[in-house]
Amino acid sequence: MKKELSIVKIGGQVIEEKEQLSLLFDLFASLKGPKILVHGGGKKATDIGEKLGVKTALTNGRRITDNATLDIVVMVYAGLINKNLVAQLQKRKCNAIGLSGADANLIQAIKRPVNDIDFGWVGDIEAVNSGMLTSVLETGMVPVFCALTHDGEGQLLNTNADTIASGLAVGLSKEYDVQLYYCFEQKGVLEDIRNINSVIPHIDPKSYKELLHKGSIADGMLPKLENCFAALNSGVSSVCIGNIDMLKPNYQEYTRITL
Amino acid sequence: MKKELSIVKIGGQVIEEKEQLSLLFDLFASLKGPKILVHGGGKKATDIGEKLGVKTALTNGRRITDNATLDIVVMVYAGLINKNLVAQLQKRKCNAIGLSGADANLIQAIKRPVNDIDFGWVGDIEAVNSGMLTSVLETGMVPVFCALTHDGEGQLLNTNADTIASGLAVGLSKEYDVQLYYCFEQKGVLEDIRNINSVIPHIDPKSYKELLHKGSIADGMLPKLENCFAALNSGVSSVCIGNIDMLKPNYQEYTRITL
Repeated sequence: MKKELSIVKIGGQVIEEKEQLSLLFDLFASLKGPKILVHGGGKKATDIGEKLGVKTALTNGRRITDNATLDIVVMVYAGLINKNLVAQLQKRKCNAIGLSGADANLIQAIKRPVNDIDFGWVGDIEAVNSGMLTSVLETGMVPVFCALTHDGEGQLLNTNADTIASGLAVGLSKEYDVQLYYCFEQKGVLEDIRNINSVIPHIDPKSYKELLHKGSIADGMLPKLENCFAALNSGVSSVCIGNIDMLKPNYQEYTRITL
Repeated sequence: MKKELSIVKIGGQVIEEKEQLSLLFDLFASLKGPKILVHGGGKKATDIGEKLGVKTALTNGRRITDNATLDIVVMVYAGLINKNLVAQLQKRKCNAIGLSGADANLIQAIKRPVNDIDFGWVGDIEAVNSGMLTSVLETGMVPVFCALTHDGEGQLLNTNADTIASGLAVGLSKEYDVQLYYCFEQKGVLEDIRNINSVIPHIDPKSYKELLHKGSIADGMLPKLENCFAALNSGVSSVCIGNIDMLKPNYQEYTRITL
């Protein structure tokens, strides 16, 4: 039987709220067994960019990672946010190690090919170095990943944090029984978007089809769920969606997605 | 016999000059055996601080690391500089992993005690986690350290890069035969400060005393050499001072310091 590995992805809104963040540190530090934290960037990069006079570059309304934006993202994600998360987890005796995909060549990516839009320095994951990552996990270290990768040719790349989390989950699923947790502001996938307590406890491919038929899945949730099923079809054991309370022992109110 | 370990410290001026930096990547990537790179921050942090409207805080003419300065230092050292160094070394097939002292609790420090001056968030090294660092080195990874530590209570601390390098060298000297390289702008310790070619090839405690008597050691070099002898007295095998050319195979023009 494979060992269980928890991969927890937190979004910007957790990072920005002090109380949420403090709760996250306590809950994540208490999780048993090998584990990985993946964090997004949130508003901080935009704030600092604005202060430095770097405007969000847009093409046809889509965000572009130009040179100046990449520098800011690297400073804020890999520097400010990542190292403070590490220091706070260390305080709780969780042996965190802050990483980007460039470190130890853990996540190699390619610059997103230009079709209609050149997204700039945005990377699509090509390979997760699961052997090296397994050695890191086996020493008892707890990787804390920011949403950056590299192309192996010296170029850092901006990569969506959800994609980093699912990429790591898939990459490590041969070695581990991977439980992937997506923490966001809601309690889970909602049956009725107007009712925050209408959390669907379990979704599998059959009930997913039914929900799609009923039109219950909100627009923003659709790509998230597609992403979850892709991860499950590539070997990840289960994906849970909810707020950070779902990391509490015996907490029930979240959505669990399985095949 | 112990395995040889090279620890190379580079200063800000190497980071700021493109050609120097490119030469460093090639030379450092070619070094045989286990190795560690330690980098300072250079002018970049000051530049970005100024752009963000953060003034260098001074007390009695001494630099102070206040909250705003610490944030900038963390962004620039651990983010921008560190991750770009890692990506460039990866390009050269050197399996770099960027680290601060907070990561995996590798370097724990205490906030410098306040005597005359409160230096702010400046850390004096207390402990190097040589066991964990040895495991990292044994996987074939090449640590790239920025000049940051933590206090184990969630606080990141700004620590001089020379001190990080010698701290790591001393901490790892039980396990390894450590060669410590301090790369700076000159070719080595100069016999005559007005003659850049008067490099002293070898200094030991006896010749050091003679040089002090003759008044050959410049003011700025004095604390550097004291630091070198302290490292040697704590188990480091040799310390070399020179410019980055000293990393070239069979290059001779630098100062080697031994007991």
